Amino acid sequence: MKDIIVQKFGGTSVADTDKIKNVARAVIREKDLGNNVVVVVSAMGHTTDVLTKLAKEISPNPSLREMDMLLSTGEGVSIALLAMALQAQGCDAISMNAMQVGIITENIHSNARIIEIKTDKINEHLNSGKVVVIAGFQGVTEDSEITTLGRGGSDTSAVALAGALNAKRCDIYTDVDGVYTTDPRIVPCATKLEQISYEEMLELARVGANVLHPRAVETAKQHQTALRVRSSFKTDDLGTLILGVEKMELHRPVTGVACDLSQMRIVVCDVQDNPGTAAMLFDGLASENISVDMIIQSYARKALNTNDIAFTISKGDWIKTKAILEKLRDTLQYSNIYEDCSIAKISIVGAGMIDRPGIAAKMFRTLANLDINIKMISTSEIKISCLVEQSRANDAVEALHKIFGLDSKEIAVVNGDLPNV
Amino acid sequence: MKDIIVQKFGGTSVADTDKIKNVARAVIREKDLGNNVVVVVSAMGHTTDVLTKLAKEISPNPSLREMDMLLSTGEGVSIALLAMALQAQGCDAISMNAMQVGIITENIHSNARIIEIKTDKINEHLNSGKVVVIAGFQGVTEDSEITTLGRGGSDTSAVALAGALNAKRCDIYTDVDGVYTTDPRIVPCATKLEQISYEEMLELARVGANVLHPRAVETAKQHQTALRVRSSFKTDDLGTLILGVEKMELHRPVTGVACDLSQMRIVVCDVQDNPGTAAMLFDGLASENISVDMIIQSYARKALNTNDIAFTISKGDWIKTKAILEKLRDTLQYSNIYEDCSIAKISIVGAGMIDRPGIAAKMFRTLANLDINIKMISTSEIKISCLVEQSRANDAVEALHKIFGLDSKEIAVVNGDLPNV
Repeated sequence: MKDIIVQKFGGTSVADTDKIKNVARAVIREKDLGNNVVVVVSAMGHTTDVLTKLAKEISPNPSLREMDMLLSTGEGVSIALLAMALQAQGCDAISMNAMQVGIITENIHSNARIIEIKTDKINEHLNSGKVVVIAGFQGVTEDSEITTLGRGGSDTSAVALAGALNAKRCDIYTDVDGVYTTDPRIVPCATKLEQISYEEMLELARVGANVLHPRAVETAKQHQTALRVRSSFKTDDLGTLILGVEKMELHRPVTGVACDLSQMRIVVCDVQDNPGTAAMLFDGLASENISVDMIIQSYARKALNTNDIAFTISKGDWIKTKAILEKLRDTLQYSNIYEDCSIAKISIVGAGMIDRPGIAAKMFRTLANLDINIKMISTSEIKISCLVEQSRANDAVEALHKIFGLDSKEIAVVNGDLPNV
Repeated sequence: MKDIIVQKFGGTSVADTDKIKNVARAVIREKDLGNNVVVVVSAMGHTTDVLTKLAKEISPNPSLREMDMLLSTGEGVSIALLAMALQAQGCDAISMNAMQVGIITENIHSNARIIEIKTDKINEHLNSGKVVVIAGFQGVTEDSEITTLGRGGSDTSAVALAGALNAKRCDIYTDVDGVYTTDPRIVPCATKLEQISYEEMLELARVGANVLHPRAVETAKQHQTALRVRSSFKTDDLGTLILGVEKMELHRPVTGVACDLSQMRIVVCDVQDNPGTAAMLFDGLASENISVDMIIQSYARKALNTNDIAFTISKGDWIKTKAILEKLRDTLQYSNIYEDCSIAKISIVGAGMIDRPGIAAKMFRTLANLDINIKMISTSEIKISCLVEQSRANDAVEALHKIFGLDSKEIAVVNGDLPNV
């Protein structure tokens, strides 16, 4: 039995026919190593934007079901063209959309989760020597409705396929060449990581690193599928391998430093300090699907029977949040709302910090030495996040990157769209 | 039970989002008359050309299976957008591709025939008050392979759906406003026909009239589905109704005059006059899928034991035909091949000529009076075709149109791409 390798190429990797021919070469290289290859592709370049624009011209609020029907055509184009390119280069290949494979999802449009992947047809084609080119991002319900998987959907398709097929590895080809200790645009001596654990990738994704969607990482972790993030353009660079923490040696307590500028802080002042007040507030936000990240409730001012509640949300959710706070004004009896958009969330992430005390203290001391005020703090087992003034974000990242020994001797060569860790 | 009307809109009718909104209005008008409406659409405007160009950039000879996968995405876009447009105008609607409907075809790519259409899901949606928007041109095999129906495929989809659904009528909306007695570009007083029989439409299609693909007309005839060809732009014009000849009163022997410039004539000179020679020649052509239209074998020259064989083919088949003739040179022992591209096939068509003798004589006399030489003649029950010099084609059409009483008192108002009858 040959090993199965799943390769995933995103929209920029298949943006035009020359790039598709390049992808075909990368596929054939993998096949020539003696592997069975399944390729997952996204829609070409800006296809999704073009289709969305057409839909908006027709309706300000198109139905999600018809949007899925519309957007799923994008991958239909790229899988057919890639199969043709493989055939033109002498490699037997066949394209399959989600319906043909049987990538079964829940019956939810625009953001469905995969329930099951049928593998019999794929295995049949692989055993007859074909490369199988599969449409990412899309799925189908038991009732033959077309669905899409939402943001990072093609990554999720690839990882889920790798799990279902018991693939040896899933290679995510992208426009960055791996996962870095931090954003090389901020710290030029950021280091590309050779390995990182699922858990660390998840924490990094949650603090704004855009390399992989958390759902894809979760799926890989669940199936314990080895995942490689590598560049579509630098084929001799192996990128970063993402795998189980138990397979890694943890040399350093901190693996990466991340900076997230997408959040804002809201303080609800002088809320009545009655039981259930906070629950009412956060239930309200949850019911509108607003994710709250950090929360701090100040000590109650006993005399007034009030306290302040501060929390962070994504800037995009501000209008919805404001409406909910207005609605709750009488219930919460707050005096004032204060919002702050000029914040940055600086996080250090590392599976190695579990057994090493003092990491948090070292972080706080480093920021204090720079005279950077910490507005909020949150922690998990393998992550510590501090909210700071946005204007001091780069200073904070640079200092933390150095103090935790992540600086490389070389300066990262940065090209194209950049790693966001 | 409400009547079902099937409406078909071609690529030019859905070429942009404004046109799609117009189509939605035409659909709602039909629904407001109290009918259940099924809409079949082609891909938007030049989508098919754009996709074909991409494929050619990748491979000079892409596999037909992958071409079908590629091209079928075009209708995926237009059905979703039309469903959105209907919803935006307050009309409940749902789009379905061929796989979702179950438009089952043979397992032949790029030119499949429909075997069966499943109607349960369509009827379910219709009964719940929805307009059902279905992708034309595409089908699916029993094994979930995507196929396409070839030229005129969307017309065929619409007519086959109308048959399967027992529709009251199938309206083909197009960029011409009906079927004319002849091409108004040649004869400005050409008349739009209110009715025409399936058989006449078939004969007209075979002699180069491009209004409807013969396969669509055949399918309508088979199910006795009333077919209406009408303009997407002039909504108050009912166009031309195509129906069974038994339902028509035949006022005139001739219904239309057509001129076909797509053919060329080939003469194979001094072929050995042995049994089976002609069979060998035409078997050779048939094996390469070359359709031969008219055939004349001259009287044998007894002394030499040879004769000449003349036939017409589509100009596009000339290179393939030449190769076959070269290959058969030794077998046929012909002296020479003579080809003639400057010919026109002029045909008169009419179900009414069956019981009226003298129509052919009248045609020949008309041409003779104009000093137009007839190079070949072929006839069917309801059609007579003459091959003439291309330079005299317009004179011939004009004269025949007049002599058979087809001239209208009004001059046809001609706009946009023109009727081709």
